[in-house]
Amino acid sequence: MAAQATGAFATRSKALEKIQGRSIVCGKTAPACPKVDQFSAEDPCTGKAIAVEYHAARDADIDAAASGAWSAFASFGRTTGEERAVLLERIAKNITDLGPALLEIAGRETGLSVTRLRAERERTTSTMLLFAHVVRQGDWVRATIDRGAPARRPAPKPDLRSMLRPLGPVAVFGASNFPLAISTGGGDTASALAAGCPVVVKGHPLHPGTGELVARAISDAVVQCSMDPGVFSFLHSGGRRERAIGAQLVRHQSIRAVGFTGSVGGGMALDRMASERDDPIPVFAGMGSTNPVFVCPSSMDRNAERIAERVAGSMTNAVGQMCTCPGLVFVCESDASDRFAKSLMNHLGDRMPETMLGKRISDTYAKRLNETSAVERVRLLGGSVPSAGWKSALRKSEGAPALFMSDLKTFIHNPKLQVETFGPSAIVVTCRGEQELMDGAGAILGSLTASIWGDEYDGRLVRRLSEALERRVGRVVFNGAPTGIEVCTSMVHGGPYPVSNQPHTTAVGPRSLERWRRMVCFQNAPKDLLPPELQDENPLMIRRVVDGRSTDGTLDAA
Amino acid sequence: MAAQATGAFATRSKALEKIQGRSIVCGKTAPACPKVDQFSAEDPCTGKAIAVEYHAARDADIDAAASGAWSAFASFGRTTGEERAVLLERIAKNITDLGPALLEIAGRETGLSVTRLRAERERTTSTMLLFAHVVRQGDWVRATIDRGAPARRPAPKPDLRSMLRPLGPVAVFGASNFPLAISTGGGDTASALAAGCPVVVKGHPLHPGTGELVARAISDAVVQCSMDPGVFSFLHSGGRRERAIGAQLVRHQSIRAVGFTGSVGGGMALDRMASERDDPIPVFAGMGSTNPVFVCPSSMDRNAERIAERVAGSMTNAVGQMCTCPGLVFVCESDASDRFAKSLMNHLGDRMPETMLGKRISDTYAKRLNETSAVERVRLLGGSVPSAGWKSALRKSEGAPALFMSDLKTFIHNPKLQVETFGPSAIVVTCRGEQELMDGAGAILGSLTASIWGDEYDGRLVRRLSEALERRVGRVVFNGAPTGIEVCTSMVHGGPYPVSNQPHTTAVGPRSLERWRRMVCFQNAPKDLLPPELQDENPLMIRRVVDGRSTDGTLDAA
Repeated sequence: MAAQATGAFATRSKALEKIQGRSIVCGKTAPACPKVDQFSAEDPCTGKAIAVEYHAARDADIDAAASGAWSAFASFGRTTGEERAVLLERIAKNITDLGPALLEIAGRETGLSVTRLRAERERTTSTMLLFAHVVRQGDWVRATIDRGAPARRPAPKPDLRSMLRPLGPVAVFGASNFPLAISTGGGDTASALAAGCPVVVKGHPLHPGTGELVARAISDAVVQCSMDPGVFSFLHSGGRRERAIGAQLVRHQSIRAVGFTGSVGGGMALDRMASERDDPIPVFAGMGSTNPVFVCPSSMDRNAERIAERVAGSMTNAVGQMCTCPGLVFVCESDASDRFAKSLMNHLGDRMPETMLGKRISDTYAKRLNETSAVERVRLLGGSVPSAGWKSALRKSEGAPALFMSDLKTFIHNPKLQVETFGPSAIVVTCRGEQELMDGAGAILGSLTASIWGDEYDGRLVRRLSEALERRVGRVVFNGAPTGIEVCTSMVHGGPYPVSNQPHTTAVGPRSLERWRRMVCFQNAPKDLLPPELQDENPLMIRRVVDGRSTDGTLDAA
Repeated sequence: MAAQATGAFATRSKALEKIQGRSIVCGKTAPACPKVDQFSAEDPCTGKAIAVEYHAARDADIDAAASGAWSAFASFGRTTGEERAVLLERIAKNITDLGPALLEIAGRETGLSVTRLRAERERTTSTMLLFAHVVRQGDWVRATIDRGAPARRPAPKPDLRSMLRPLGPVAVFGASNFPLAISTGGGDTASALAAGCPVVVKGHPLHPGTGELVARAISDAVVQCSMDPGVFSFLHSGGRRERAIGAQLVRHQSIRAVGFTGSVGGGMALDRMASERDDPIPVFAGMGSTNPVFVCPSSMDRNAERIAERVAGSMTNAVGQMCTCPGLVFVCESDASDRFAKSLMNHLGDRMPETMLGKRISDTYAKRLNETSAVERVRLLGGSVPSAGWKSALRKSEGAPALFMSDLKTFIHNPKLQVETFGPSAIVVTCRGEQELMDGAGAILGSLTASIWGDEYDGRLVRRLSEALERRVGRVVFNGAPTGIEVCTSMVHGGPYPVSNQPHTTAVGPRSLERWRRMVCFQNAPKDLLPPELQDENPLMIRRVVDGRSTDGTLDAA
């Protein structure tokens, strides 16, 4: 499928000609870097380099981007929600206007299908438009007012007003698996800009061309909106300087927060780096997730085949390269669970190896499959595990589904079974009865989602599972697949470690804006110094908590 | 003053007889510990041990407390806001009912005056009552509903409902300086209980008797409310096992979050410990704060003496042992600033050494004064710095005010001047003109508060200062003193590092409850599994965001 989508391109398409291979620093194209620091992207379908040379950001580019972001923050941090809404809408339009060229390049760099990329572009722009709506409306800043009482005894009561205020420039590290929705113009960038924070993106080496095109769209929008060009910069990053660029950015004194999506190792390394600064800054890292599925006995009895079909579809969605693909299925051992496993195998058995996002992704997938199958009492039910010589054998970036089976005891005693395998594989964990199913719910690591298949005949078990699982995940899904994230206010895309280093936050939806702001209180502030959100007249007509009560009105005279 | 308050007690007062010296584990008095692990508290007014032997919690006590808290969470995590409100009200009553005995013991252990302790008790109980009101009312859980649209194409829209859900058992490490309001029954305990999280308190070694009395009041309330006694435990901690007890608690698998108030070293040690667990948990650490004051030129011209009086009062409040006492004063060099410094000196010069909270507090204070005065171009303006032999010379826990003066350049180049000195001292930092004042605002570390003295003739400078300072503090105070924390919804008691390791949170006010909860989303949940806050009928009549709009109504039929 992926090969079909990208195979039609000529070696150097018109789309590629739009790419300069240079970073964009405060609206300007960065100069060339030394030859030795240049890098190229690979077409994962062919394993061959794509004919563009990318210039890794130089130290001076990084410094200029971060310093420029800090300067821009002076004005951008004070823009109105309306002004930022217009910016976001402009960005969405510019990204859409990139047309087929963006999909072509993204497809070529990631092996993802045009259908999938079109849907992802839609999610990217609709997120921009949703955030535009949210900041234009204005309620999200959590404005709170407690009026003073100067005559109170023994001490006068001060006038106190607080709201979320922006942190400053944000460094964004995008993900490999969503070149549009979780990358240069993805959720972190959109939410940070919506929150009034300038953004410096560290480009992802697996899709630099996609990143550059989107970056140009954003940078152009900043200029079109007559804003300080320092509001957005994009740093090409790859080759031998990749890590150094990330490190310099996170350590730069002008950077006030970091957004990251990727591996646990990568996220925690940035977290440590940020906390070792003289002035530690927050890192919001979205990391690995196993998305376990729990099937209750009655539901299994009645729906084994349907559940197998849904699980198979979800685990192989985008070649298993979504953060919410299920990687663990806990079942109670029974005839029905045997039917389930067979059905799951049948669904997966149909599938040929497919192109993964890049060689480093498929290599890690192969390594994890080998680790899993090496565990005693883990059985390969279906699909295949690349043999010992897989590293040389696999020229291309491919992965095929693999289904393992094991038992709860083995799962609990083997940490390697408990962590994410990024790719289209899952382990069916058989439990002896409901108590073991509950023990499984207690043994999983933090996860973005957990899914429960249960019906009215499963009785209290469904409730018990839900109560146990809500302690460990961001989203509990009932009788459905975890993939497919709705971008809306109540979405929670986060969870306890290792899913996130900041379990109190969500990376998707309007509440993701709160990561880039912090509550600040103004005590007895002169009226003309108060932000509009906190003024007596409530000029933005937003909802506020005044003296402990929710209201969208003005302040009455005391 | 402190000596007067406590000097009247007999060696072993009736109040002391209420104390058993034992930990309270799930409602039960813990057994004795080995002699070598017993410890006693000291009367800082006399430097002599108070005649009670405290039994440090044994490993088994810690395990029983944490495990009991986890068991209790099964029911306590599901209590209604109403049920928890009744518990909080009962605790407030029980603490009040401890009567003069509590004030006596707290005074004897801390050297704080009865007047101060009475006010602190009032803040403690009124916080309990405020949180009772907040959880009874119910809006605080941020309930959010996005209704599904099964017929939507290409994919059906799921029904998504999210709200803040409790994390589980919380370990609380209280502060030395607020034996009531930031300790056993203080803000962390009150907010965690309000949020539905059982609490295990690690007792503070400087006021174990106070802790035990309050712990008994809380533990009794839990029983009176017919709740699982594991909802609250108190572990005596001091002597050679002090650190081990804290470490075991933070590492215990049943503990899901930690609240701490104290030094930067202590807070960051716990933070590291918690992040090195197999399943890292969040630590909310309130740490050191300098609370800088910025005086604009015109305001100084017109009000030098009044400002000096307010600053002197605030910096010596409770012998400078409040987290919000100002330790830095930035002024523009002028005749008026000279008058200010002289006036400040006069106010401080009146004051004799006063009893501090304990020997380790006064020793650290003396050490910091020595460090400050050792910096080149720092001048002692008034008060005194203990001489080289201070450690042996100071038998009692005393500290006298000290006022230093330096210049901005010296401040910027000497990190030791930039961190908190816990005690009644401050550094006046002279700036040459407004730009240097702004540079000072840019050079301070994260702080709970910053205060600006400015009037209409200071023009844009006040706004510029406010904009710079809001980046670095939790609360910007205008023309007033930073001490005196109003406990209300808009209060922010927090800020960037080193004030807190979690700059997005507040430790005071209703929003402090959010630390102990995390947003969880339920997708297509069966109606009978939804918490009341998320049910269609809105049985609690709380305010919710439904399909993006704030409403306190029910859900209409779709």
